[in-house]
Amino acid sequence: MPTSRVGRLAVFGVGLIGGSFAAALKAVHAVGHVTGVGRGRANLERALALGVVDEIATDARSAVQGADLVLVAVPVQQTARVFAAIAPHLSAHAVLTDAGSTKQDVIAAARAALGPRMRRFVPAHPIAGAELTGVDAAKASLYHGRSVVITALLDTDADAIGTVESAWQVCGARTVRMTPERHDAVFAAVSHLPHALAFALVHMIAARPGADELFAQAGAGFRDFTRIASSSPEMWRDICIGNRGALLAEMDAYAQALGTLRALIAAEDADGIEGVFAAARAARNRWLDNAR
Amino acid sequence: MPTSRVGRLAVFGVGLIGGSFAAALKAVHAVGHVTGVGRGRANLERALALGVVDEIATDARSAVQGADLVLVAVPVQQTARVFAAIAPHLSAHAVLTDAGSTKQDVIAAARAALGPRMRRFVPAHPIAGAELTGVDAAKASLYHGRSVVITALLDTDADAIGTVESAWQVCGARTVRMTPERHDAVFAAVSHLPHALAFALVHMIAARPGADELFAQAGAGFRDFTRIASSSPEMWRDICIGNRGALLAEMDAYAQALGTLRALIAAEDADGIEGVFAAARAARNRWLDNAR
Repeated sequence: MPTSRVGRLAVFGVGLIGGSFAAALKAVHAVGHVTGVGRGRANLERALALGVVDEIATDARSAVQGADLVLVAVPVQQTARVFAAIAPHLSAHAVLTDAGSTKQDVIAAARAALGPRMRRFVPAHPIAGAELTGVDAAKASLYHGRSVVITALLDTDADAIGTVESAWQVCGARTVRMTPERHDAVFAAVSHLPHALAFALVHMIAARPGADELFAQAGAGFRDFTRIASSSPEMWRDICIGNRGALLAEMDAYAQALGTLRALIAAEDADGIEGVFAAARAARNRWLDNAR
Repeated sequence: MPTSRVGRLAVFGVGLIGGSFAAALKAVHAVGHVTGVGRGRANLERALALGVVDEIATDARSAVQGADLVLVAVPVQQTARVFAAIAPHLSAHAVLTDAGSTKQDVIAAARAALGPRMRRFVPAHPIAGAELTGVDAAKASLYHGRSVVITALLDTDADAIGTVESAWQVCGARTVRMTPERHDAVFAAVSHLPHALAFALVHMIAARPGADELFAQAGAGFRDFTRIASSSPEMWRDICIGNRGALLAEMDAYAQALGTLRALIAAEDADGIEGVFAAARAARNRWLDNAR
């Protein structure tokens, strides 16, 4: 039995993230009723057919009316519009949360739209992205063992934080608290930068004359290195813009790191190159050992 | 039954690549006797115990005496030394091949060491790297469905090329012919550059204050993107130096591509960013579809 239960849940954006959240709560009977809202009618019908949602709402008002918990899981640049649409219709007790990969820009959007309901907004970021999109990619087990970062503010209601943390824990995730600023800096380094690097590499190679021959020889290393370049262009466009301050700083730091490595290679500095590679391998293997 | 059979095989460097080659030929009874040579005594004893080799040789002379096929599968910077050591002892009919990830530098080393036996040298590159090393990582199935690039020269003996191509095909691989120059340009783009990028990213993050917190939040995208940063530092140091001309050109092209993306993000050019990401995703997904 779940330790907590959500009565009525409304999910804006029933894709991989929103759909899996609903499916996970339903799998353990931790939610009474789920309303799905979104841009794609076909995707919503599919969510209904799969039993991920119980009902489709066509406007923000009917979607959130009576909802106890509202999850906004749309590309981050659309979050402001959704917040503005639902703000007038939220019940006083309703808890609002999101699943955005950036937090300072989402919080700014919430502050502009929510007024006194800002205290009921619990900013969150489940670390469970995948290059798949749409409700067909959703699964109840997506969050098992995954981490969800909660970036609550000093004046966020404690019971609202508890509702959101409990819901994620019921989904099998562990929750971690962080300031929004720290969140954005951390994920610029370990998530947003790698995505930008992978997109840039595949784009560069695809734009070449003879790209087909290059791809024909690409092996497993290239496949894994570029897996994240199959992610949603729209979602990652929004993340790059939403967190551009921290991301640009990381891109600059990386350009400098690459310049240092370039100089070592140009100088045929075998010890210097091996030093960089060995330190990287040791750090990565230590990380994997700790993660086990 | 294999379509061709190697009598006596000598393998210099009984690790993932050399060990898997011997194991694959043995699995289908396509080799009579395998002699292993290498720097690490413990690894060679392990290869003997696993049945990957039948005998350990401690010097180059005894290793290649009577050998019909000699595979040199050592980090590329050691190839010249091995060629020089074995050249005086190769039988007239013996075929020599390698498994180096770079080809022009290996060919130059062969030319310097082999003299008249240069015609018996068939430069080759099996595309089956992994971040694992040592004979324990070797397996007979490693080359199933993989590609092996053969960069024979105009004056390489046709029967020697045939022996090497047949052996790789018996291992389950398909062989592809390419000039050494084209090989080095292609793999600089799709293999050497991604490795340099992954090593540089992990090194940059590991060197930061607060690196542990960064790693703690890294997810599946980071894990796959950096898998190749767990590769052998020594092997990749040698590849970067051996193919530095092509690699430095790729690093410069990539720095420029990254600069272009940086400018789009700094300008909040949503369409421009999405254009890069969408083109990359489409190209990668097309590649995966073709590879199926």
